[in-house]
This record gives sequence, C-alpha cells and structure tokens, in this order.
Amino acid sequence: MDEFARIRHWTERRQSPALLASQGVVLGIGDDAAVVGTPPGEAGALEWLLAVDTMVETVHFNDATMAEEDIGWKALAANVSDIAAMGGTPRHALVSISVPKTWEPERVRRLYDGLYACAGQYGVAVIGGDTTSSPLHLVVAVTVTGTVAAGRAICRAGARPGDAVFVTGAAGMSAAGLHFLLAAAAAGEAAAANAAQPMGAAGGSPLGAGAAAPSAPRPRPVPPAAAEAAGTAALVQAHRRPAPSVRAAALLAARGSVTSLDDVSDGLASEAWEIAQASGVKLALRESRLPKSGSLAAYAHRCGADPLEWILYGGEDYVLLGTIAAGDADAAKAELEAAGLPMYIIGEAEAGPAGVELVRDLDVRGPVRREPLAKRGYNHFGG
Amino acid sequence: MDEFARIRHWTERRQSPALLASQGVVLGIGDDAAVVGTPPGEAGALEWLLAVDTMVETVHFNDATMAEEDIGWKALAANVSDIAAMGGTPRHALVSISVPKTWEPERVRRLYDGLYACAGQYGVAVIGGDTTSSPLHLVVAVTVTGTVAAGRAICRAGARPGDAVFVTGAAGMSAAGLHFLLAAAAAGEAAAANAAQPMGAAGGSPLGAGAAAPSAPRPRPVPPAAAEAAGTAALVQAHRRPAPSVRAAALLAARGSVTSLDDVSDGLASEAWEIAQASGVKLALRESRLPKSGSLAAYAHRCGADPLEWILYGGEDYVLLGTIAAGDADAAKAELEAAGLPMYIIGEAEAGPAGVELVRDLDVRGPVRREPLAKRGYNHFGG
Repeated sequence: MDEFARIRHWTERRQSPALLASQGVVLGIGDDAAVVGTPPGEAGALEWLLAVDTMVETVHFNDATMAEEDIGWKALAANVSDIAAMGGTPRHALVSISVPKTWEPERVRRLYDGLYACAGQYGVAVIGGDTTSSPLHLVVAVTVTGTVAAGRAICRAGARPGDAVFVTGAAGMSAAGLHFLLAAAAAGEAAAANAAQPMGAAGGSPLGAGAAAPSAPRPRPVPPAAAEAAGTAALVQAHRRPAPSVRAAALLAARGSVTSLDDVSDGLASEAWEIAQASGVKLALRESRLPKSGSLAAYAHRCGADPLEWILYGGEDYVLLGTIAAGDADAAKAELEAAGLPMYIIGEAEAGPAGVELVRDLDVRGPVRREPLAKRGYNHFGG
Repeated sequence: MDEFARIRHWTERRQSPALLASQGVVLGIGDDAAVVGTPPGEAGALEWLLAVDTMVETVHFNDATMAEEDIGWKALAANVSDIAAMGGTPRHALVSISVPKTWEPERVRRLYDGLYACAGQYGVAVIGGDTTSSPLHLVVAVTVTGTVAAGRAICRAGARPGDAVFVTGAAGMSAAGLHFLLAAAAAGEAAAANAAQPMGAAGGSPLGAGAAAPSAPRPRPVPPAAAEAAGTAALVQAHRRPAPSVRAAALLAARGSVTSLDDVSDGLASEAWEIAQASGVKLALRESRLPKSGSLAAYAHRCGADPLEWILYGGEDYVLLGTIAAGDADAAKAELEAAGLPMYIIGEAEAGPAGVELVRDLDVRGPVRREPLAKRGYNHFGG
C-alpha cells in the first residue's frame, strides 16, 4: 500500500453513517466530488456558508509548537470558527493536504486523528480531500460548509451606533501560549546544545551550524507537562486546541439582535477594525471590561510582557467578537451564562468615522483617556 | 499596501454582480465565510457537489512547464472537471494560496488572471479564499461547488455488464505536452550553459553547479511559439489550459442513460480501474477505438515514444470517461456531435471480476489479443 493509499485508508469510512446522514451527506469521500443534500430536520429555506483556511509548516506552526494531532485539530477548528462567526451551523469539511517526504506516514495519521477528533466534537462530516506530495513543508487547507436560515447570516457590516460590543471569551490566550512554547523550545535547544558539546565530535563544518541541521533529530513538541509545571496549560491549550464558539453562535444568532459578528482569528484590535470599517462605526473598547485570564496575567508578569499587547494584538483565539442591540445585551449574556457559556460586554459602538479606540478606564483616580488602536494583525513568529 | 492587501485588491469585486447573482451568491469574498443560496432558475430539489484539488510547485508544475496564468487556469479547471465528472453544473470556487517570498506580487496577479479567466469561461463565482505565506514553494488548493438535480449525480459505481464505454476526447495529450515542455526546457538550459561558458567568469564553485542556482535567473516558461514551431501546440495547450467537458457532461447527464462517469485526471487506465472496481465489472477497451490526436502521434514518432503509453497512463487530460446503456450510446454520440462535442465509444463493460483489459485489435491479420492493464497512475516528473 503506497503512502496515498494509506491516507485514503485512514479517511474512508472513518465517520459513522449516522453522523454523515445527520449532515445530509449523500456521497462522501471517494468519488470525483462529494454529494450533499439538505440536512434532515431543516425547515424553511437554507443558505450555505463556505470558508477556507490554511496552515503552513514554519509559518503557522513548527515541530516545537504543535504536535501532529494539534495541527489537524486546529486546521479544522479555525474553519468551524468561521462558520460560527456567521451565526451558522458547521456541516462538512474537505481537506487538502500536501505532505513532504520527510513526514513519516505515522505523523500524517496522527494529524488526521486530531482532525477527526475535532470533526467529532463539532459534528462535522469530512466529505472530501486531496492528498499531494510537497517538496519540503506540510500545507493543510481545509474548506468547510455550514448552513444558516436564509437571510440570517450575520456579517461584519451591521453594527449600529449604540450597539453593545461583546466577546465570548478571553483574547490573547493563544498568543501567550505560543510565546511560552517558543521560549520553552529555545531553552530546550540551548540545554541540548550544552549537553552535546562535551561529546566533541569531528569539529566544525565549513558551512557552519546550518549544515548540521538535516542530520539533527527533529525537535519534539514541548510536552503538556512542561506547560502544567509552568502554569501555562490553559494558554498552550488555547493555542493548540482552540474551541470555536459554535454553541454561543447558535444561541446568539437565534436572538435576532446580533448586528455584527467576527471571530478573533487575527487579533481583537484587527477584528474590531474589520467590523468598524464594514459597518462605518467607531468601536470603543473599555480596558476595564476586557476579560483577562489569570494564567495570562501571571505569565505576562513572569516574563515582563504587557498582557494588553497579547489581548489586543494576539490572534487565533477563535472567540467571537460582535455587536448586539444594547437593549438585548443583558438578556443575551444571561442566556449564554445559563448555558455555561461566557459573554462579556466590553464596549459600545459609536457614530463614525470608522475606527477602534481603547478607553483607558482602569485608573480610577486619573482621567479617562481614549487611545486609537492600530489596525495591525497577528504574526506568528514575528517574521 | 502589503502583499496580502494587494491580493485582496485583485480578488474583491472582480466578477460582475450579474455573474455572482446567477450563481446564487448572497455574500462573496470579504467576510468570515461566503453565503450562497439556491441558484435562480433551479426548479426542484438540488444536491450540492463539493471537491478540492491542489497544485504544488515542483510537484505539478515548475517555472519551465507553466506560466503563472496557466497555473491559475489549471488549478480551477481541474476542479471544474470534478463537478463535470459527477454530471453537475459548476457554481463556486474558494482559493487557498500559499505564496513564497520569492514570488513577486506581479506573478501572483498573473496567476489570478488565469484563474479568473477560467472562472469566466465556466461561469464559476469565486466566493472565498485564504492567502498565507509559504516558506519556499507555491501551493494553490481550490475547492469548488456544483449542483445537480437531487438523486442525479453520476458516480463511478453504476457501470453494468453490456454498457458501452466512452470518452469525450483524446487522452494522453497533456502528458505528451509535458514531455515536450521538459525536453525543450532541458535543451534551453543546455544551450544557455554552452552560451555562458565562453564568458569564463571566476571558475567553478567548490560546491558544484547546484550552488550557482540561487543567483541564476529563474527559467522562463517554454514559449508557445516554441510549441507552434515544433507542431506540439495542441499538446502544450492540453497540458497548460485544459478544457473540462462541462457541456458534454450536462448533455450526457440529461439523457439519464449514463451509468458511471469519471474525469481522466489520473490516466485512462487508472480511471477505468476506478470505475471497474467501484462497479464490479470488467472494462474492455479496444485499441482501434481509442482517439489518438495527429500531433500526439507525430510527436511520439519523432521522439521514439510509444503513444499508447501516454494515452493509457498519461494524466490531466480532464476528458470524461464513462459508461452508458448500450442502446443509447449512438444517440448520445449523435447529440454531442450535433453540439460540436466529440464522443468516442471505445469499448464495453463485461461481467466481472473487476479489471481493465486492452483489446489489441489493430492488426487485422493477426489474432485479437486481450491484455490486462496495470492500475498505475500519473506521475508528473517521474519522481
């Protein structure tokens, strides 16, 4: 069985007929295209949601930051989040994966394990894929479908002055988790280099350290135990296994009062700008209202970092950011909290010009200042 | 404007509102997900078709074999062909593209020019995408949707003993075109190396020829004029700008007599095997019936190659291979030909065991032999 046949073997008939049927799948993986009909139980006219998201080795992850299962989980989760961000129900996924020869099949199998675990968690039917080889780096592009009642998709463009601004979870966790993982990996490499030095070996290569890299063992992902020991487990979990706000999105969409919605894939400030520009409003975010996790605060303190930098400009948290009619904000919050889901009112929309401001209201003795926030996005490895 | 903003600029509002509306697009590129409804004019229950296909630099193309416009065209055309191969109408596309820093934005713009040209040709609405950077090689993964009347998708599994086997065009053209392109590029490199030698320069690098490559100018695609001069223009066109059989698929699907259908992306023998195994039949292909283009025959003769090798084991022709109720084969052929579309009856399905045989019926004096065909696929660069 060649490598591609093996991958087909891992993906065919992997999900139960009941799950596939529940998503309206007529024909899944294995023919020229998948065939899907209207999912059963849907009454009334439907519209379909479609999104694609890509993860590239060395750009979005490396050997130290993510295990293979994490890559598969996150590749799908990022897409599921896009469907949630439209107020929709995720339905199907198609997976394009380009695999370098240096990736043993066992690693690919583990990537699919993570992807199917995420698919199971969110009830997504994996209905198609394409596997190709890749010269050097793994690339995985996932396309998802979702459904929404006709005319009920929630775009970025609907925010109105007076609306309340909310998030469904703490932002910045994933970026702080990545910071920890990169630091832990660098420390591990330094320790390994020190341990290796006494062995002497055959002296320096004329090409320098780079030439030795191909024969060096592949770095292993920073183990979860290291994060547990450092008190950063929640941050690392947010980076490796993000949990898109699908249930919150469904409850919010059903209320009919949410006027704009986005997921925080590219940082809170950047996504707020997206809504502000699309809607032609100014979003004022109150610093005192931004949810800040204890482990983020503790880790930022420990490494002398500004937690606000992660909260505003970190990315890949996949919580939802949106606006809601002010009169319904408290009731929506109460409904989500009754379902065990957090919701934080963090500011309000104001009449334009389009922009995002941070209201510096933490210092109760000083004057309240307002600072414009830059529209800059998330950059994984600072490259 | 950064590179990604420039790419968004090339893709937003690029297609006419009329085209988008004709495909039921409610919301196109620019939000978390696209929103599509039922395309107007569709009566009765629909099912959706979904497929994804990926092209990787150095695996599926290189600088010599394809211009940027060709890559964009073919990335979409391969997917459109998958929808045709189900008897469906292509509707929408989502484009994931991972771009290395070595690709100037201008090259990416040309890739999109080709992709949008193909989208215009087949009426496909481009409704989403994701652009990421890539460490070294370009990767483009396209997902397409299509529609088909509920229950009318044509799978691989329906062939019955007695059915006629048909193709909608000559196979092997693309593989022969690639052969020409690689040979022309190698000849060009040899000529360039000879031309460079008299200039002397600073002598050999201790690392050999490979070390000079990064500073060498990027090879340009073999120009169409070279193919014109060599009589291989049709072969090169088949490789660079494949034309999926969308109209033929629509006419064939409407007849209701087509029992299985596949596109020849992976070679005639390989796709015949797919149908044979899925349907549990034996497909007997008659050598005398296989369409063979004049330019393919001439080029094979010129380079001492066996044209049958390309016809059976070449790939990426994107013609359709299928089976049809024997009683309707002649009428279907007449209908397609009246529409200016070729159709060739090349054999028949027989009772299993599953397999594919070539009936060697060209030598009218000798005995007719039957040879089993191997189930091997297409490998671009022999790697």
